[in-house]
Amino acid sequence: MAKFSTDLDRAFSALGDPTRRAIVSRLCEGPKSVSELSEPFELALPSLLKHVRVLEESGLIVSEKTGRVRTCRIEPEALQATEAWLGQHIATWERRLDRMEAHIQRMKRED
Amino acid sequence: MAKFSTDLDRAFSALGDPTRRAIVSRLCEGPKSVSELSEPFELALPSLLKHVRVLEESGLIVSEKTGRVRTCRIEPEALQATEAWLGQHIATWERRLDRMEAHIQRMKRED
Repeated sequence: MAKFSTDLDRAFSALGDPTRRAIVSRLCEGPKSVSELSEPFELALPSLLKHVRVLEESGLIVSEKTGRVRTCRIEPEALQATEAWLGQHIATWERRLDRMEAHIQRMKRED
Repeated sequence: MAKFSTDLDRAFSALGDPTRRAIVSRLCEGPKSVSELSEPFELALPSLLKHVRVLEESGLIVSEKTGRVRTCRIEPEALQATEAWLGQHIATWERRLDRMEAHIQRMKRED
């Protein structure tokens, strides 16, 4: 549970940055080398690598080096865990709204 | 778009903290006063209020003061926007996986 909580902390925090979300977004379309990833960003390589490292530490992506090329890809479990957390909580909120609406309808009928 | 991006920045960043996720979690069950919210947390009131303020700034919750009581409630749009972002990207990733699997099946049949 503690580990799970730390994983969510890191994943949500990592997604709080627009460049990191853009990297995740591009990797959802398929694995990319760091130099391919850097293309649309006006970022120096060290800055891009820093974002890549934060994303790796958050468990959202993994990277592998073959020769001189580092290739990054999505690690789906962390994305799915963050979505699951949100989905569960939105469902709780919606169930409460449904109960309130049912209660209001019941009161209207009783009037 | 810029505003939307900043909203997502704030919402994801705010959810990167376990106390703030616990506050969101409890508010999904219904509105609560700040003193009700503080009960399960071993936190001094100023620390709790700081988390409440971050959540308000992120758009995830709103609070209203009536007399001496400040009541907090979920603002569903921000939760839904973060879930939608994740859902879209997971769907992109899954579609890519499906295409890859279809391609592999096709290659197997051609062998």
